[in-house]
Amino acid sequence: VSFTVTVLGSSSALPTSERNFSAHVLNVDERFFLIDCGEATQIQLRRFKIKFGRINHIFITHLHGDHILGLPGLVSSYGLLGRKNDLHIYAFAELENMMNDFSKFLGANLPFSIIFHHLDPHSTQLIYQNSKMEVYSFPLMHSSPTCGFLFKEKEKERNIKKEVVDKHQLSVKDILDIKAGADLINNAGKTIPNKDLTISPHKPRSYAYCSDTLYHEAVVPVIKNVDLLYHEATFSESNSKYAQETMHATAKQAAQIALKAKAKKLIIGHFSARQKNVSVLLNEARQLFPETYLANDGVVFNVDQVRGT
Amino acid sequence: VSFTVTVLGSSSALPTSERNFSAHVLNVDERFFLIDCGEATQIQLRRFKIKFGRINHIFITHLHGDHILGLPGLVSSYGLLGRKNDLHIYAFAELENMMNDFSKFLGANLPFSIIFHHLDPHSTQLIYQNSKMEVYSFPLMHSSPTCGFLFKEKEKERNIKKEVVDKHQLSVKDILDIKAGADLINNAGKTIPNKDLTISPHKPRSYAYCSDTLYHEAVVPVIKNVDLLYHEATFSESNSKYAQETMHATAKQAAQIALKAKAKKLIIGHFSARQKNVSVLLNEARQLFPETYLANDGVVFNVDQVRGT
Repeated sequence: VSFTVTVLGSSSALPTSERNFSAHVLNVDERFFLIDCGEATQIQLRRFKIKFGRINHIFITHLHGDHILGLPGLVSSYGLLGRKNDLHIYAFAELENMMNDFSKFLGANLPFSIIFHHLDPHSTQLIYQNSKMEVYSFPLMHSSPTCGFLFKEKEKERNIKKEVVDKHQLSVKDILDIKAGADLINNAGKTIPNKDLTISPHKPRSYAYCSDTLYHEAVVPVIKNVDLLYHEATFSESNSKYAQETMHATAKQAAQIALKAKAKKLIIGHFSARQKNVSVLLNEARQLFPETYLANDGVVFNVDQVRGT
Repeated sequence: VSFTVTVLGSSSALPTSERNFSAHVLNVDERFFLIDCGEATQIQLRRFKIKFGRINHIFITHLHGDHILGLPGLVSSYGLLGRKNDLHIYAFAELENMMNDFSKFLGANLPFSIIFHHLDPHSTQLIYQNSKMEVYSFPLMHSSPTCGFLFKEKEKERNIKKEVVDKHQLSVKDILDIKAGADLINNAGKTIPNKDLTISPHKPRSYAYCSDTLYHEAVVPVIKNVDLLYHEATFSESNSKYAQETMHATAKQAAQIALKAKAKKLIIGHFSARQKNVSVLLNEARQLFPETYLANDGVVFNVDQVRGT
């Protein structure tokens, strides 16, 4: 079962010839979640061959142009392609007004519904869940109200070993009890401990997206032990005054957050056009947090399934 | 002196992996004129290495998303790059409202002014001129009010031959008279005809942009004898029912307009995503008008300077 992040763009507010505006798409078991949607995100989705008809949920961190200007065009393309499924957009309330202002330029009526979910900029909220996963928004600290997002698989029940069901001729009730952790008393009256009947399920996987933000330690408990952490790293240490002025983070600060959160892997992006050589940022982050990688356009990060013990 | 059109995009409302939304940039003597501005036009300007800081005039044919959704991002980038020059936008009045709605998402105040010039959808109008050229808007026929644009160098005065000024010790008044067509009576009282004193100037070059539109013969007198005609060709003949329904032209119809207008060269674009093989469109147009070329993304069309006779 996939749990994969594709980087659609890695620039900050000014794109370059190599970097489009920051946006990611998360694929959980062939359901796609889009995070941020700057101009040309629909072009990047095509370029990187994402099945973007399968995106039903779009998460917008904040209402700066470089995170939203691709939405009207994407919505328009969905209309032209005859989309039927509801499209859910999670964003601050004002985005709904913007999209309404825009709808008059998008030609005929859309053949699908857009359902807006308004974010709370002040607290951590569960904003979406299905049978397998949950999504939380949490406050970041930027020049405009901003949320990060945490995508997390739900805890799974233990799996019964294949041979156990036949051997002991288990009833449905037995099976449910054992999956929930019960031991089994067999026909001979002997107790077989749960750990001999079951194997550990896959550990829930998780991915957190933190952009745009100053260094903000309040996120650490929310994203604790995350498998994959994306944290913006707009500037190098030598440009830290720009980071402070524009309310962005440095690569070192991103690494500090990853370290405190005990993240397994850190990816950094949202690079300023001032940073001609982003390997400087990578090196600065790796000094603190070796498992750091660059979120270059088109790069794919996979989180493997691992069984618990 | 350059007179060059770069094709920034060649799709219709749905981009493909090879084609971005239709937009052209005209370079006249290193002054740049942008025509239409769909999503990701700023990306294409970077990709094709256009000095886009030199664009001071943007011409918008009509207010469908695929022709305007790149404007907010381009304006935002100009702001971040510290642009100082006024930016003139020629479009229907409603675009000004859209840009005002959007300005709240574009961060800090722009360091330059945007000057809107409202188009008249009903008649041919001179909408811009400088010392060397003129730009006209003229009505097209589409599902929303739409204008085409004609870019035309001004008629130039005849050039005095270099040796004539010294030989006859001409005064400033003599020079102006001769450039305007006068003959010269020399010191010996002999009349020297103007054609022996001057050479013909370069012929004024011209470029017309016709998109989006049904076949519309009313444009023919406006664009008569144009050097380079861009005419949309969204569909092939076999898809002409879609052309009619969506108020677009076929490749054959584009060629008919070029033929009637006695254009020197035709470029066709705005291809529907239905047209997997655009060579079909090229062949259909060339049967009527052999000097037809495809407006593929990144292609450059140059209009050479030619002296009159």
